[in-house]
Amino acid sequence: MEKTKIGVVGLGGRGFGLTRLIASMEDIEIVAVCDQYEDRVRRAVDGVREDAGYEPRGLTDYHDLLNIDEIQGVVIPTSWTDHIKIAIDCMKAGKYSASEVGGAYTIDDCWSLVHTYEETHVPAMLLENCNYGRDELMVLNMVRQGIFGEVVHCQGGYRHDLRLGLAHNREPEREMRHYRQGEYMHRNCDNYPTHDLGPIAKICGINRGNRMLSLVSVSSKARGLNDHIMRLDGPDYPLANYAWAQGDVITTIIKCAHGETITLVLDTTLPRPYSRNFQVHGTRAVYVEDNHSLFIDGEHSEETPWKDNWNNVDKYYEKYEHPIWQNYDPSKGGHGGMDYLVLRAFFDSVKRRCPTPIDVYDMASWMSVTTLSEDSIAMGGHPVAMPDFTRGTWFRKRDQYEGEFAL
Amino acid sequence: MEKTKIGVVGLGGRGFGLTRLIASMEDIEIVAVCDQYEDRVRRAVDGVREDAGYEPRGLTDYHDLLNIDEIQGVVIPTSWTDHIKIAIDCMKAGKYSASEVGGAYTIDDCWSLVHTYEETHVPAMLLENCNYGRDELMVLNMVRQGIFGEVVHCQGGYRHDLRLGLAHNREPEREMRHYRQGEYMHRNCDNYPTHDLGPIAKICGINRGNRMLSLVSVSSKARGLNDHIMRLDGPDYPLANYAWAQGDVITTIIKCAHGETITLVLDTTLPRPYSRNFQVHGTRAVYVEDNHSLFIDGEHSEETPWKDNWNNVDKYYEKYEHPIWQNYDPSKGGHGGMDYLVLRAFFDSVKRRCPTPIDVYDMASWMSVTTLSEDSIAMGGHPVAMPDFTRGTWFRKRDQYEGEFAL
Repeated sequence: MEKTKIGVVGLGGRGFGLTRLIASMEDIEIVAVCDQYEDRVRRAVDGVREDAGYEPRGLTDYHDLLNIDEIQGVVIPTSWTDHIKIAIDCMKAGKYSASEVGGAYTIDDCWSLVHTYEETHVPAMLLENCNYGRDELMVLNMVRQGIFGEVVHCQGGYRHDLRLGLAHNREPEREMRHYRQGEYMHRNCDNYPTHDLGPIAKICGINRGNRMLSLVSVSSKARGLNDHIMRLDGPDYPLANYAWAQGDVITTIIKCAHGETITLVLDTTLPRPYSRNFQVHGTRAVYVEDNHSLFIDGEHSEETPWKDNWNNVDKYYEKYEHPIWQNYDPSKGGHGGMDYLVLRAFFDSVKRRCPTPIDVYDMASWMSVTTLSEDSIAMGGHPVAMPDFTRGTWFRKRDQYEGEFAL
Repeated sequence: MEKTKIGVVGLGGRGFGLTRLIASMEDIEIVAVCDQYEDRVRRAVDGVREDAGYEPRGLTDYHDLLNIDEIQGVVIPTSWTDHIKIAIDCMKAGKYSASEVGGAYTIDDCWSLVHTYEETHVPAMLLENCNYGRDELMVLNMVRQGIFGEVVHCQGGYRHDLRLGLAHNREPEREMRHYRQGEYMHRNCDNYPTHDLGPIAKICGINRGNRMLSLVSVSSKARGLNDHIMRLDGPDYPLANYAWAQGDVITTIIKCAHGETITLVLDTTLPRPYSRNFQVHGTRAVYVEDNHSLFIDGEHSEETPWKDNWNNVDKYYEKYEHPIWQNYDPSKGGHGGMDYLVLRAFFDSVKRRCPTPIDVYDMASWMSVTTLSEDSIAMGGHPVAMPDFTRGTWFRKRDQYEGEFAL
């Protein structure tokens, strides 16, 4: 078997996990791993040796990794600050790339991605694992089958209590390296929109016959981190009274060319259980993640208390499970299968030298939500236009990836 | 026992139900009932005779009702088109009024309410039953006790499938009289904001140390009614291809003076189970109606799957039930007790000639959301300022009602 040759850039917590997941795949060879911190590099090299019985090269400058000819694709789980820059360098080096998720700082960065792709024709993918979530895919499947009628409105969120990681630096390593703390100190925006937006964008056909036209974004005050620090660390902790720029809850409403609305919520500094707040509302059905229910017009009645249908989604997997999940072996692991599947989707494109199921136009438009929400919040919720990174080709554009991981 | 003398204006479906609920109260006498349709008047008169053993006067012009000296208070369950006009006439006639809920058509109407109150000093109340909902009151109680820490964000909605009533006129009565159909034909806004906003406004201290500053509102396309008609009535039905102005889902984000955000959703023309979508997010707790759960920082852990805590609200009634509900006898009925309680709150104020727990400033500011959302939607989600109907007195204003139904 000819192994596909991969490099990994970024070996922190998440990068280390992904590296070991990749190392477990028999048809993939990790040729090199890279991180600015040498201890992380050593740990990853050791991890791959333990898992797969070979040693990748360990590097601290990703340019050295891009100079290795045999590497065909680069997985980029670095901090989100560097995703676009490294993806662009990968395209210029002729290598497929798959960037971990995050948001953009400027629209100019998003255009640079698109320009570089149009010059090089080398695919760059966003590694949005939630596009391969079980329910997200089942709902996509049901929408394509017409079960939802016409989709009118979607909701999503990244509702994840990150207070402990963001505000406290009990671990010396975290103090120096947890780059997101700076984001919360200085910026106010939906800094992490793609876990929720990615699956919705596919459901709404964004960049494939539809596009996002405009958004408004409004921020609550920032109180969660201060309250948390005050209780855990007391008033003498350095950040106890810091005036965090990032509001606790950011609500964004996107309007699409075909009239759909998409509401996104970032909610990461208050106590709560994890939720992606996924909802799809059509003329014939509704899906709601937070009580794991489907309501299908005709099949369900408004007379039945909603509570009686909570958690009824389980009943629908047999009928509507997406083929990707029908074929998936859950023992492969990684965030309930999502990490495994999104990596396999990327490697399939690398192997076959074909387009990726999430492309640079998706990446640019999804990531643009961050900087555009920042603008809207700064202007008191003023609507801002969303660029058409496809330059009008979305009218007729269809997915160019046609393999088993097609979305 | 001296009975409190009440009149009722508006005897359609909901008005008839409220009239009979009032007739069942031994300390209240319905002196007169009024509706423009004589058949409704006769039905209500008959209903009161059956329920209470006496006959109220039956009128078709509410001005005649206002001329009856002995009437102390007027309940106004008419169509929402007339709430403000009739409430103003009640104030001018020296009679307490309680208007059923709805939204305003203009800010000028809202100011007229306030001006008339300030000239007459006669209280006018909005009969917002959801302010007396069991969970809404328990969460209010918990917020006042500090269990939520600082409240940062709230959500609410009127998510109620009204398609059958709005689009189909199989019943001849409905064709002539269902005034809301016109609203959906010609307007696009959050036409029914107070079921969700009322309880949240009390939780956020709106007009009592806080106020709503601005809102943005975005509308989805309108497809639900057309799809429903096409399936139920076929393409020859008169409204089958009508271009409804009202979008299926309206999302509004309100920003408050103390930094809280409030998201409201109107969702009345798509299939779905009923929900008011009530959520309260604080620095120390979260309440979510849609899976009936409370998450209290420290008591609950993010490690526990959320599903394990669904429906855990039942456990908290014993500890945090609001005194109004502790004292309530559920056999009194009416929308799970809410209708009964909100009427009792009104009658308590009428009896004691004291202020009402929901006052004209609340009524004006809550109802203003409708016309302001209409403006914002028309301007593509542009933020619009919300008037301060208290003219700066909200800094120090406290509830003036101090009875057993205080919110």
